[in-house]
Amino acid sequence: MSFSFEVARTDPTGARRGRLTTPHGVVPTPFFLPVGTAASVKALTQDALEELGAEIILANTYHLYLRPGHELIRKLGGLHRFMSWPRAILTDSGGYQVFSLAELRKVTDEGVRFRSHLDGSEHLLTPEKAAEIQLALGSDVAMVLDECIEAPAPRDIAEAAVKRTTEWARRARTYFTEQASRNGQLPQWQFGIVQGATFADLRRQSARQLLELDFRGYAVGGLAVGESHGLTCEMTGEVTALLPRDRPRYLMGVGKPEQIADYVALGIDMMDCVLPTRAARHACLYTSEGRVLIKNARYADDQRPPDPNCSCSVCRRYTRAYLRHLFAAGELTAAILATHHNVHFYLDIMRQIRESIEFGNLLNFSSKMHARYVVGPA
Amino acid sequence: MSFSFEVARTDPTGARRGRLTTPHGVVPTPFFLPVGTAASVKALTQDALEELGAEIILANTYHLYLRPGHELIRKLGGLHRFMSWPRAILTDSGGYQVFSLAELRKVTDEGVRFRSHLDGSEHLLTPEKAAEIQLALGSDVAMVLDECIEAPAPRDIAEAAVKRTTEWARRARTYFTEQASRNGQLPQWQFGIVQGATFADLRRQSARQLLELDFRGYAVGGLAVGESHGLTCEMTGEVTALLPRDRPRYLMGVGKPEQIADYVALGIDMMDCVLPTRAARHACLYTSEGRVLIKNARYADDQRPPDPNCSCSVCRRYTRAYLRHLFAAGELTAAILATHHNVHFYLDIMRQIRESIEFGNLLNFSSKMHARYVVGPA
Repeated sequence: MSFSFEVARTDPTGARRGRLTTPHGVVPTPFFLPVGTAASVKALTQDALEELGAEIILANTYHLYLRPGHELIRKLGGLHRFMSWPRAILTDSGGYQVFSLAELRKVTDEGVRFRSHLDGSEHLLTPEKAAEIQLALGSDVAMVLDECIEAPAPRDIAEAAVKRTTEWARRARTYFTEQASRNGQLPQWQFGIVQGATFADLRRQSARQLLELDFRGYAVGGLAVGESHGLTCEMTGEVTALLPRDRPRYLMGVGKPEQIADYVALGIDMMDCVLPTRAARHACLYTSEGRVLIKNARYADDQRPPDPNCSCSVCRRYTRAYLRHLFAAGELTAAILATHHNVHFYLDIMRQIRESIEFGNLLNFSSKMHARYVVGPA
Repeated sequence: MSFSFEVARTDPTGARRGRLTTPHGVVPTPFFLPVGTAASVKALTQDALEELGAEIILANTYHLYLRPGHELIRKLGGLHRFMSWPRAILTDSGGYQVFSLAELRKVTDEGVRFRSHLDGSEHLLTPEKAAEIQLALGSDVAMVLDECIEAPAPRDIAEAAVKRTTEWARRARTYFTEQASRNGQLPQWQFGIVQGATFADLRRQSARQLLELDFRGYAVGGLAVGESHGLTCEMTGEVTALLPRDRPRYLMGVGKPEQIADYVALGIDMMDCVLPTRAARHACLYTSEGRVLIKNARYADDQRPPDPNCSCSVCRRYTRAYLRHLFAAGELTAAILATHHNVHFYLDIMRQIRESIEFGNLLNFSSKMHARYVVGPA
């Protein structure tokens, strides 16, 4: 199977219904990537992910470079084989993690020098290195290294980060193009990442500069980091308005259930977020009736499924009372069941969104989610 | 389905092949009970347990009484419904846990007064109360409250514990017989527990006294608590020699993979142990080649399945290298996969043992396991 991206239909909002074809399967767009940071979506087996219908997952360059090491994974046949995941994988570049997890980091034009959060060892991540690691991992989609800055950012810092991000993207593109054409290399698509904090002109500038590098897809990074949802949407819209219609668009690190349709309406095709998996481990279930904080005493004798309108294997089998008990007792199975349900919920939102686009009624879906998650259930 | 126990065949060693029929399914004997202390076999979903072929699991009276409470479980339709487990359940009486987990316990003829290890609240567990809780839980097999003593025990302490255990068993039997005949009560079998530490005459005395109470099955308790395997077997043999052939025999809290066939050869039909599940969470895998401590660096690039001779879904899909990585990274999925494999391994031992009894060659199986687990792989 060779790579391609097609948009089959665009609805009145600007939402796009399409598909991303990868060497590891076809992924209908728009889609959500469950996060499998260290080559595992926390608390889910690959069997479970397949049952849930996940067609693509995200893994992390920073984590896998540090442990178990990209050379080991290359030696063991690449990430798909290492983790026994035959479907598509996107790898983040490690940029965000170096800036949020690593210690004593020092950014220069060359790259980021940092100490591992695991053992304090010193490393240098450059645009070339991030690309090299991802080629070793053999992910289907690789992201370029970008400079992530603290939010809210003053203009001069944001401007400098855009400049450096563009320069890094250029080097990453050059390195990738040389390496990826070598014999025996697995096919991979490389995406650029638009930065620019909350400055519309910087966002546009970043996008235009990356467009010159002809990436196979474009991501919007550095958003949903504390600013209002309205501002996230505004910045996203500034970027998607400039992006070519025939390339996938990826809004990184989002979002809440009620926000997803808004991003899709702005022309976003891909999203990833730790929210469904992390919230599950903290006993927060996403349901068609809104958030259910399952440890609440009100659920102690609640015999309803976690989500009465959900068809996942957890909701078909277990009650709120039982899930509450598992969390109260600190049972590992609590995280397993809650994660399973939440990932199903997110993947189901995407299924509904794709269907809504096909029927041209995404706005209805969006209002429904807002009513449940922002206003709360009736 | 009504209750029954049948022995279909006895092999030359004394091993028995039979079946325990319960209102929640037929369980072929001899069998192993995965331990689901707080109404969950740690890290396994009920779907996984079914896939593994577990026909019966163990849950704990002490834990469920304290959290979420037996009255809540009764109200929610009993333990099977509460945890969505349609197959058989045996509940331990809480005796062992009160003596090993609870604080400030005080044993009198009346029962055991103790403080919860969860919140320090004070409780009194009596033989009647332990039976009442288990009737509320609605387990298929209920155990009587016994007095568990520290090992090694001086003779006078062991003697007094046998005396009290018998007296408690008498009260439990009386209470159970009265209550269980009430209308609407789920059918349940009650088992007595033989004590007597490592004194053969006390073991025989305890067994004879319990036999008078006509339990539907008999357990051997207080063994495998630090004494040699030979002594465990000797004491077990003293008891099974006296037990009626038409009642199931349960050796509590055992055992290591290489010991199981020895107990079966002594006429034991049932065993439970936290070993496969607990060891799994500590990265110890039981395999046909012996124990595999999967965090060991030698497995970092080992592309073999955890157990090359195993047909479980974990061994069919994942490598030792990946499991090692998951443990190194502290991923929840590590416990899930390791537990799945270890429980499969134990249930598979039981399948092989049952087959060996049918073919009259249990001793061969036993030697094979000893060679792998005591001598080590070739």
